[in-house]
Amino acid sequence: MATAAPDETAAMRRAIELAARGLGHTSPNPVVGCVVLDSAGRIAGEGWHRRAGGPHAEIHALRAAGERARGGTAVVTLEPCDHTGRTGPCSRALIDAGIARVVYAVPDPTPAATGGAVTLAEAGVDVEGGLLADDAAAGNEAWLTSVLRRRPFVLWKYAATLDGRIAAADGTSRWISSPQSRADVHRLRAAADAVIVGSGTARADDPQLGVRISLSDDEISQPLRVVVDTGATAVKAGARVLDGTAPTLIAVAEDADTAHLDGLAPIVRLPRAAEGPGLHIPALLQALYARDVRSVLLEGGPTLAGAFLAAGAVDKVVGYLAPALLGAGPTALGDAGITTIAEVLRLEVTDTEHLGPDLRITATPLRHALHEEN
Amino acid sequence: MATAAPDETAAMRRAIELAARGLGHTSPNPVVGCVVLDSAGRIAGEGWHRRAGGPHAEIHALRAAGERARGGTAVVTLEPCDHTGRTGPCSRALIDAGIARVVYAVPDPTPAATGGAVTLAEAGVDVEGGLLADDAAAGNEAWLTSVLRRRPFVLWKYAATLDGRIAAADGTSRWISSPQSRADVHRLRAAADAVIVGSGTARADDPQLGVRISLSDDEISQPLRVVVDTGATAVKAGARVLDGTAPTLIAVAEDADTAHLDGLAPIVRLPRAAEGPGLHIPALLQALYARDVRSVLLEGGPTLAGAFLAAGAVDKVVGYLAPALLGAGPTALGDAGITTIAEVLRLEVTDTEHLGPDLRITATPLRHALHEEN
Ligand SMILES: NC(=O)c1ccc[n+]([C@@H]2O[C@H](COP(=O)([O-])OP(=O)(O)OC[C@H]3O[C@@H](n4cnc5c(N)ncnc54)[C@H](OP(=O)(O)O)[C@@H]3O)[C@@H](O)[C@H]2O)c1
Ligand SMILES: NC(=O)c1ccc[n+]([C@@H]2O[C@H](COP(=O)([O-])OP(=O)(O)OC[C@H]3O[C@@H](n4cnc5c(N)ncnc54)[C@H](OP(=O)(O)O)[C@@H]3O)[C@@H](O)[C@H]2O)c1
Repeated sequence: MATAAPDETAAMRRAIELAARGLGHTSPNPVVGCVVLDSAGRIAGEGWHRRAGGPHAEIHALRAAGERARGGTAVVTLEPCDHTGRTGPCSRALIDAGIARVVYAVPDPTPAATGGAVTLAEAGVDVEGGLLADDAAAGNEAWLTSVLRRRPFVLWKYAATLDGRIAAADGTSRWISSPQSRADVHRLRAAADAVIVGSGTARADDPQLGVRISLSDDEISQPLRVVVDTGATAVKAGARVLDGTAPTLIAVAEDADTAHLDGLAPIVRLPRAAEGPGLHIPALLQALYARDVRSVLLEGGPTLAGAFLAAGAVDKVVGYLAPALLGAGPTALGDAGITTIAEVLRLEVTDTEHLGPDLRITATPLRHALHEEN
Repeated sequence: MATAAPDETAAMRRAIELAARGLGHTSPNPVVGCVVLDSAGRIAGEGWHRRAGGPHAEIHALRAAGERARGGTAVVTLEPCDHTGRTGPCSRALIDAGIARVVYAVPDPTPAATGGAVTLAEAGVDVEGGLLADDAAAGNEAWLTSVLRRRPFVLWKYAATLDGRIAAADGTSRWISSPQSRADVHRLRAAADAVIVGSGTARADDPQLGVRISLSDDEISQPLRVVVDTGATAVKAGARVLDGTAPTLIAVAEDADTAHLDGLAPIVRLPRAAEGPGLHIPALLQALYARDVRSVLLEGGPTLAGAFLAAGAVDKVVGYLAPALLGAGPTALGDAGITTIAEVLRLEVTDTEHLGPDLRITATPLRHALHEEN
């Protein structure tokens, strides 16, 4: 925005940083950061939305600023809300604090929450939207996607050799990717509301799926661990995913016999896929959405990832490529319904990063609109 | 080297650039560049080895410098030769021209050629070696490797999707990689002495294997086109590889019936592999070495690439990764004799580059010494 002052732009960068601290803690709410500048343009208070049900970012920042907020500017990553939810409208709090100007990045896209900008303007506050909107939207990518698609944002992660193998011919795979890559996966888990694996992975690896890293800011929020286990045959008593360190959900078919799981983990019963094996992916995502899940880390394996891609239900791909070759063994991606080159799923690479010896490639599918699930 | 002057370092960088112009033209000789500085340290002449049988880089540079060479410094990427080959020893030419100092990067490793530095020093020339040796050695990678291994340097190139596929399930593959990547492959071909494909690729694609790019410097040298066609059944009259635009060699088994190829292309008869299908890879490389081939671009397909890797006969890998997913179809690399993760072939990534939408990964196998062919 041409009219934002340099100190407001700096404050917005800071607010975007603050917002990121909420990742993994705020669903079904967005992450939001706020910096209050006093009337001289100095930072008077900072805040971010720490957890769903807690005060919004603006409230934290106003509290920190106290009387210095009067005549000042609130710089916030998302348009302030205008509805009386669990915490009261932020527009009202800003007006009551005597804020003279509000600069926000991204307009609030949720039907219930829009209108903050109008209310503020009507109360005589100088309001400006759009400052660093792309950066702020990137920081809220998962939540904004979930609002748009009315299902959780899905990030598919895989680790493979340069020739696309996830294991050797005999099934052995420890460790294809580097310690740095594995630590990075824990970072992705910490930012997600749920982690999903298929019954094949549950059977082969007995994964624990928890976040095991030390984060500097705040405590870690463990994601919901989800196993897609149509027949309820893969997860058994004693499975590591049932270890109690984080919530778990077993997704099974409506007619699955789950007696052996009684009292061990919550079960969700879902319709089977219209075609092919397994459960209906859109129904699975709806069930998670209903449980306030807004971002999902799909950890595989290749069969389930193929089903998600075929359903148009992958929003972002993160591949950890180890500088290694195997020449045999299972591949990173199974059948995604693509039979000929004209149907190839094209992506756009948005980031490449070296993680120890590995290369991390981040990419976004391009054909999304054509392939949306139904 | 601590004692090299700044203008000598700059001259060496220039000499390395000049040397690169010879790539693809000089085998069985190395590429060499030379800059002659006058006694005041100004550039007096430049030269590079343009083609085998032609004058060495030093001779070109001395001719360009003329009388200004007297009392000056010759900066050269490789230790000047001391033997009377097709062109006479460069050490003698430098002494005769009155050069006072010689700075070179890489010592000449060939038994017949060493000694230039000693001869120069004995004649009272100030000699210094090792300046920018790593950079110069990288520029001569193929030739230096061929001297060390007594077989051609082998660069394996592949193009694949992020999930490691080279074609869709039905075999279609045009175009997985970008125009930029395909142009880059022509650059690799132009720098190679020979391009190799297996009979599978010859059969599936009927490739032409020529260099089809406009290069700014010099004319293009077309590499020898080699098809590894054990039974002599893949290459038939009318095949594009027989189009006469470049030399071609068909490698067949000793007992293959090649009557249908009489007069169409030179044939080389080789022993079969000790185990498994096809020809003995080390014998193939020896046959090429005997034909003055010092660098090979192995263009696949996956089966032949697996055999080369299993034989420890790949020195460098260049992968063009297209941001695309297929989930089915043939993979970039076939059986390389690796059955369990402990045998995984580890590489070191030496370069990553964006080519249009694609990512080009350059890597060097780490286990080379363990797996050398025999
Ligand atoms: N390198 C990596 O990044 C990575 C990550 C994860 C896993 N892995 C490896 O992947 C291997 C397991 O992969 P996998 O492909 O066999 O199993 P998977 O993808 O984990 O699970 C596949 C199973 O999920 C169930 N499923 C439920 N709904 C489905 C649907 N709509 N479409 C397809 N499947 C559905 C099906 O079994 P039911 O119908 O019986 O439920 C299916 O067989 C393991 O070896 C593991 O180590 C590697
Ligand atoms: N994307 C890419 O970068 C790329 C590059 C090249 C090819 N391709 C694709 O790859 C496919 C063909 O691949 P491919 O694997 O079927 O064929 P290939 O690797 O080109 O050729 C394999 C054949 O080479 C012969 N051969 C000779 N000596 C051998 C040895 N020591 N070990 C193994 N094989 C030896 C064997 O047949 P004989 O014994 O009968 O001679 C073998 O079947 C085509 O679809 C092509 O489009 C893709």
